[in-house]
This record gives sequence, structure tokens and C-alpha cells, in this order.
Amino acid sequence: MLRDGAGYLAEIRASLGLMTVVLHADYTLFDGVLQPHLAVSVGDDGRVLAVGPARELSAPSDTGESSVVRLAGKALLPGFVNAHSHAFQRVLRGRTEYREPGHEDDDFWAWRAAMYDAATRLDPEQIEAVTTFAYAEMLRAGYTHVAEFHYVHHQPDGTPYADPLELSRRVVASARTAGIGMTLLPVAYQRGGPGTPASAKQRRFLHRDADAFANTLSGSRELADLGRCPVQVGMAAHSVRALDRSFLEEMAALGGVVHAHVNEQPKEIAQCLAEHGLRPIELLADVGLLSPQFVGVHATHIDEAEVRLLGESGAQVCVCPTTERNLGDGLPPLRDLVDAGVSLSIGSDSHANVDPFAEIAALENGERLRSGKRNVLAGVGPGGAVGGPLIAAGTRGGARACGLDAGRIHPGSRADLVSIDLESPRLVGSSVGAEGGHSLLAAMALSGSAELVQDVWVGGARVVNNGHHPGWREARAGFETVMRSLVS
Amino acid sequence: MLRDGAGYLAEIRASLGLMTVVLHADYTLFDGVLQPHLAVSVGDDGRVLAVGPARELSAPSDTGESSVVRLAGKALLPGFVNAHSHAFQRVLRGRTEYREPGHEDDDFWAWRAAMYDAATRLDPEQIEAVTTFAYAEMLRAGYTHVAEFHYVHHQPDGTPYADPLELSRRVVASARTAGIGMTLLPVAYQRGGPGTPASAKQRRFLHRDADAFANTLSGSRELADLGRCPVQVGMAAHSVRALDRSFLEEMAALGGVVHAHVNEQPKEIAQCLAEHGLRPIELLADVGLLSPQFVGVHATHIDEAEVRLLGESGAQVCVCPTTERNLGDGLPPLRDLVDAGVSLSIGSDSHANVDPFAEIAALENGERLRSGKRNVLAGVGPGGAVGGPLIAAGTRGGARACGLDAGRIHPGSRADLVSIDLESPRLVGSSVGAEGGHSLLAAMALSGSAELVQDVWVGGARVVNNGHHPGWREARAGFETVMRSLVS
Repeated sequence: MLRDGAGYLAEIRASLGLMTVVLHADYTLFDGVLQPHLAVSVGDDGRVLAVGPARELSAPSDTGESSVVRLAGKALLPGFVNAHSHAFQRVLRGRTEYREPGHEDDDFWAWRAAMYDAATRLDPEQIEAVTTFAYAEMLRAGYTHVAEFHYVHHQPDGTPYADPLELSRRVVASARTAGIGMTLLPVAYQRGGPGTPASAKQRRFLHRDADAFANTLSGSRELADLGRCPVQVGMAAHSVRALDRSFLEEMAALGGVVHAHVNEQPKEIAQCLAEHGLRPIELLADVGLLSPQFVGVHATHIDEAEVRLLGESGAQVCVCPTTERNLGDGLPPLRDLVDAGVSLSIGSDSHANVDPFAEIAALENGERLRSGKRNVLAGVGPGGAVGGPLIAAGTRGGARACGLDAGRIHPGSRADLVSIDLESPRLVGSSVGAEGGHSLLAAMALSGSAELVQDVWVGGARVVNNGHHPGWREARAGFETVMRSLVS
Repeated sequence: MLRDGAGYLAEIRASLGLMTVVLHADYTLFDGVLQPHLAVSVGDDGRVLAVGPARELSAPSDTGESSVVRLAGKALLPGFVNAHSHAFQRVLRGRTEYREPGHEDDDFWAWRAAMYDAATRLDPEQIEAVTTFAYAEMLRAGYTHVAEFHYVHHQPDGTPYADPLELSRRVVASARTAGIGMTLLPVAYQRGGPGTPASAKQRRFLHRDADAFANTLSGSRELADLGRCPVQVGMAAHSVRALDRSFLEEMAALGGVVHAHVNEQPKEIAQCLAEHGLRPIELLADVGLLSPQFVGVHATHIDEAEVRLLGESGAQVCVCPTTERNLGDGLPPLRDLVDAGVSLSIGSDSHANVDPFAEIAALENGERLRSGKRNVLAGVGPGGAVGGPLIAAGTRGGARACGLDAGRIHPGSRADLVSIDLESPRLVGSSVGAEGGHSLLAAMALSGSAELVQDVWVGGARVVNNGHHPGWREARAGFETVMRSLVS
């Protein structure tokens, strides 16, 4: 009897007493294409072992492969990566969607004042509770990894906690409790702006200088853990607004994964030009921060020269469309970035929405609105349908932004996976026909939602089962307790 | 014991043998505000009888009110109205999201060629099957009424069917089978464009002149039915591109509800100026078509003068954001329209997405992207949160576009209702606090999705129960059969 490779490998391992799970879905995203009836075997190291054709098993015991999980009516995809998060901002959802009295011009800067109020008031226990809930929400939505752009470090008056890493430990604990993989990015933040000291409400964010920040980094690195549910540690520069040139230069010397907010609002660019005679991306290039490990978050208002600098340096861009539209930031020139070879990822940022499908759809929809054209990020022919690049940005692109070996279903890659409900009204009819794999992926990408996600695996362990996260009830209760405190 | 009005009324009616259902949800949208623990009584005429404070009933039999439906963990809202639909276009989802070889400029007009191919090939049975499925999908998504902009009238070669109303009967039958209320809008379509006869692929759409169209209208009116699941009949002018001036003038003389595509693409406006020396809205004003019963669909590329004309005439605008972004149409000036007193509604149009929450969120998000500001359609203070106007556009605005007494929970209005799942991760934490009703509505409007909808009532009859539509399996099978034919 002809055996499929992945299944055969699983049998051998089982006979040796090694735990292997074989996942057999109706469709599996392999090599960027949805292919029917593949078997994906996952080892006890939490990585994909093999991928090969599945055969229908009439009963698991037939072959001794009691570890086969038949995902009927589902598609198996890599888990999405949330490459930009400020978890505590989840408290703001629905709360800043009206005009303050006397504010004719309601914009990003007005929102930021409301956000600072929340940032000022939350204590460590509350930050952990909000973050745990936000991470659980992310998992249910199909995110298997989050990069936490972590800038709330100190007590409200700016004094470090007795343990200076108190809040870093809290968000790492949240990731463990929820069961999501994490890349912690301690953020460097020095001043209110060029020639402007930090305001009272920014005190929790600050590092005096790069030495102080380097201390935070080395302490944070002790929180790293390369197990099934990993904790990685990188770093972030808040923005060129929040750091002076010498701080940025010293950060460049540190190396490794570095994220930064860039070009989100016109005012930031004007300030940077006034201070340095350079636009933000130009300044970051000048201080040596652009590299293949650099991720510019937003990049909304970049010009052609800045696109070129990003492309030439191998730098990446993380787009946060649902937040960027909520805050009135605008639409970045994504086609130009892709043409320059810049890798894209997504992030839920302020968590106005926690839905990777909403983010990836908005990448293409934004380009269509900007240009008046269709299929801007797509290729030619059914195989070039825009589902491919969009899902890739949400998975592989995000993994790349975090320096994580995940984001694709491939031997050796982390088994961070999600199953998608093919019975959803959103997807009915899309898989029919010879090009069905392509149109199904396009429908997922442009007509999907978080509710498509049924099961979620992190490092091969199933953490969401048929929509249920075991810690949900507790996480939710903890979050609602914080909300009652905050709004009373 | 103090009795709530709605509950007491229900008891009296029950004692008289009249069927009344009392719906008691955790929140009910009443007078534009989410209010806790109201009882909504619905009579056997399918209309709301009364709304008043609910009291918690320890057991239904305590009071003999066995007709109380306790919607715990849910909010009760008016059903959404889909004011613009071409149901057959549902076959295209996910299928046109790649570039055709040789087409550098992929845009609306390229999409339209693909859409015509589908329109040409479907026979009456297939149109009914696709439409039934699309309508069932709409119901599950929370739409209780749909305005069908019905332009596929004849056989593929342009000959009327033996029964000239064959396809009108088919879509009406679909609405009945699915259980959705409908406003049928037979569409007048005469030519390919100014001085351009209709192409081969447009033959199914055509009426030779206004007399022929008036015949279609009078025949269609016999399909009307004012029962629990209503069928209303209005009319539509396809566009100023598709009709010459005298046809438009004769339509204006007919009166009643009239919809028309307006200003969707720059090329249409250029053609209209070349032909008439007027922009499309100006032409429609000139021929006497603008009135409070007129609904301009899209209105994407309108100027200040056209905004003024719409406002002065009392005309309405139906926005189809998820289609308008998919097709690269652009973003309409909604704040200007609202300031001019124009009533807004939504439509799923091509059904790239069938999700009223996606449509209403995009109304505000589009304005934020266009202007760089936040809270563009919102008012001042928590009570002015943008959830109010957005939900209103999706419900009351749509009912107004159809001339339907629905879209709000109010004594005498149709009991077209939906229940919303308050346990969804999307909404957790939003209802906390004194302003919780406002922030919850804002979260629904900006962070919602079709999957929030649990139960759907049309004319007081529950047609979707806890996410289940009884005809779903059959409708889905019928649709998949058509898809297999179409893509083979």
C-alpha cells in the first residue's frame, strides 16, 4: 500500500515512542498555494516534520496512527503574526469615537491625549490583566505570535519600579498565561519632541539616555525563552520625535531586531525636517539604523527617496491599517514599497480591531482606494490572485519582522498554525473549480474575518480548540474588572 | 406588583388569544440609544406593539407570559437594510482578484467585463439559486430587507422570456424562499453609452424605450405583497450613461421610489458632460428625477454643486463601501452630504462582502482616511459617539431608501430585528460604565462583523435562530451547483 511521506514518518516515530501529530485538512497552504488533502506532521519539538499527500483513513486504528487529526471542512494555514502591539491600548476600544467639546479638529493628537490618560492610570496588575485578555483575543483571532512594542516601563511619576523590569515581566507573564508566542520590544523614549522635554503623562515611558536603555535591554534579555511558546527579545526606538540623534546612533550600535514608528503623521515629518534637515527615514538611514532587521511601523507618509532607502537597506515595513484608519493617519504607498523589495507585515497596534483578515484586506483595499485601480498587489492570472501576497504579509512577513522561524508550513518551521472554517458563508462557493485554491485564498484574504479561525496551534500545541480558549473566561473577567476601575 | 407596559400589554393580548412575543434583551436600541433591560412586544401583525422597562421574570409561568423570549447576553437592534444589491454578482467573490494577462491597468471597467460574462451565462434557475443563497447569507449577516437593483431581464440574446417577468418572479421567489423582505427595483437600461448602442453582453438588460419599461413596471407591481415578509416594487434608472434624456424625463413622470447609480467612476462623469454639458446629478435634477424618493447609489465623485442639489431636493444617497473599495471607485464626501441634510443608507452591491458592520464602519473610516481627522460623522460628547449615526445609516436610512416602515424599534414599526452577541471578543469591555451604552454601540459599529448576529426576525417571525437558517443547507447546495457549472 502506497504510503504518504508525512504519515509514514509519523508511524515510524510513533513506533519509537515519539509523539507526532498529523494534521489532515481539506486544504493546506503549502508553498504559498492552497493544496487539497495534505498531511502535516508535527514533532514534539513543536516544529513541522514533514508535509505530504494525505490518504483518507477509514479509521485511525487501521494504521495505528491515533495521532491523526482530521480537520474536515477546514483549511490549515500558518498562524498570523501581529508585528505591532501596544496591548494596554485595548482599554480604549469604542471609547474615543466622539468629539470632545470645543475640539473642532479631532485627530491623532487628540486621541493621543486620551490614550495617555489610560497609560498613566494602569498599575502593574491591571496592565497584566489587560494584556492577558488582549493576547487571548489575538489567539482566538488567529495570531500565534505578537511583537509587543513595550513603552510603559515605570510608575506613573516616572520612578522605576523596585524591580525596574516589573512591567516587562508582566507582559511576558501575560503571553505565557494566554499561550501566545511573543517578541518583547522594550522601547526607548527620551523626550516630548525636538527641544521639548517629556510631559508629565510621558514619564512612565522614559529612558534618560542610551546607557540606561542598554541596561533595560540586557535585563529584558533574561526573560527570553526559546521553548514551545517562545519569548524573544528585540528592541524599539519609539520615533525620531522621541529620541535625539546621539541616542539613535548608540542604538544602531546595539544591533539585532529593531522596530520604530516612522512617518505616521505629517507633523512628525515637519518636526524632523526642522530639527535635522532630514525626513525620518533619511535620518534613520543616516544614523545607521536601517538594515534587514529594521522594521518601520506605519511608513504612512513616506516619499520616493524614503522608499528607495528602505528598499536598498533591506529594511521592512509593518502596516497597521485598522489603526491607521481609526486614527486618520492615511494610506501608505504599498505598491511602491513592494516594488522596492520591502517586506510587509501587519499589526493590530491600538487594537481598535483584532482581526488579521481585516488588516490584510485593508492592505489591498487601501491601494485600490488610493489609485482607482484593482488588483494592485496582485500578479497575473488566477495564480497571481492577491490572496497570496496578502496572506504572506500576515504570516511570513510578520515572522520575518520578528526574526522568527515561522509563518509558513514547511519542514523545520515552527508549528504555529490555524484552521479556517470552510463552511463560513464568507467562503462558500470559492473553492469550486480548477482555480479553486486561488479563489478560495483570495476570498479568505478579502472577504474574511477573525471568526473564520477555529483552532490555533502554538509550537504544535493546540491552544484554541474549536473556537474555545481554556483561559478565556478568567482573562475576560480580569479585563472587565480593570474596565470597571478605569471608567468609574 | 408593578408591571412593565410592554409585558402587561402582552398579558392582556394573551388572555384575548392574540399571539404576542415579548423580547427582553440585555440592551435594546431604542430612540437611537442602547438601553438596558427593555421589553419589546411584537404583535401577530408583525409590528412592534410596545417598548417599556422589562422586569426580570424568575420563571415564564409565574405570569403566564410564556411568550417571553429572554435574550440573555444579547442586544436587540433593528435589522439592517441592504439598499443596493445585484444578487447574481455573488458568483464573482474571490474570482476577479488577479490581473488579466496584458492588462496593466486593471480597474472597474476590466471587472465589468468579467461581471458581464457571468451575467450572460446564468439561466433563470441558476439566477434563482444564486439569489436565494445570497439572500440567505444576507439574513445570517443581519440584513432583514434588500433592495434588488434588478437589471437582468431577458434571455442571453436579448429576447424576452415567454413570460417577460420570468427573472423578476425568480428573484421574488428567492426572497420568499430565503425569508427576507424585498424591494424589487426593475432597472431601465437602454444603450451602451452616449451614441453607443448596447453591446452583445448588455442585451439581457435592455428596454427599448420608456413605454416598454412602463409595461415591465406595471407587471412587476403585481408581484407586490404587503405581508409579514413583504415584497415592494419601486424602479431604477441604471445610470445617465445607460439612458438618454427623454427616457429619464419619462421616468421622472412615473413617480415613486427610484434608485440610480450615480457618479461611480470619473469616465461616466466625463461622458455625461460631453453629452449634456451637465454632471450626472445636475442632469437628474434637470429632468426632474431628484426628490425625497430618489436614492443615488455611490455618489463617489460628486462636487459641491451636486451635494447642494441632493440636499435641496431631499434626495438620499446609498453608499456601498466594501464594493466601492473592491472596484477602486474611491471615497464619497459623506460629511458634506450629511451637512446638506442627505440621508445615507448602505448596500452590499456586488457582494464582495455581505456584512452590514463592514459597510457602516467603512462610512466613518473612509472619512477619516480622506480627511486625516477622527470622528468625522460623530457628534460631541459620549452621546455623540459615531456608533449612533452609523447604525442609523444601516437601519433607518436603508428603510427610508426603500420607503419601508422599519429600521427602528418603535411602536407601529415592522418587527424586523436582530440580536447581537455581547459575548463576542469584539465587544468585551465596551458596555462597562455610565457611558457604556454609547461605547458599546461605537464598538459594534467600528469593530463589529456579521458574525455578531445571532437571531433575525422579519415581520416578527424568527428566520435565523442562534445563527441557524433552516434553508441554509439547501440554499448552499443550490449555489455550489451553479458555481460548478459556471467555472467548468
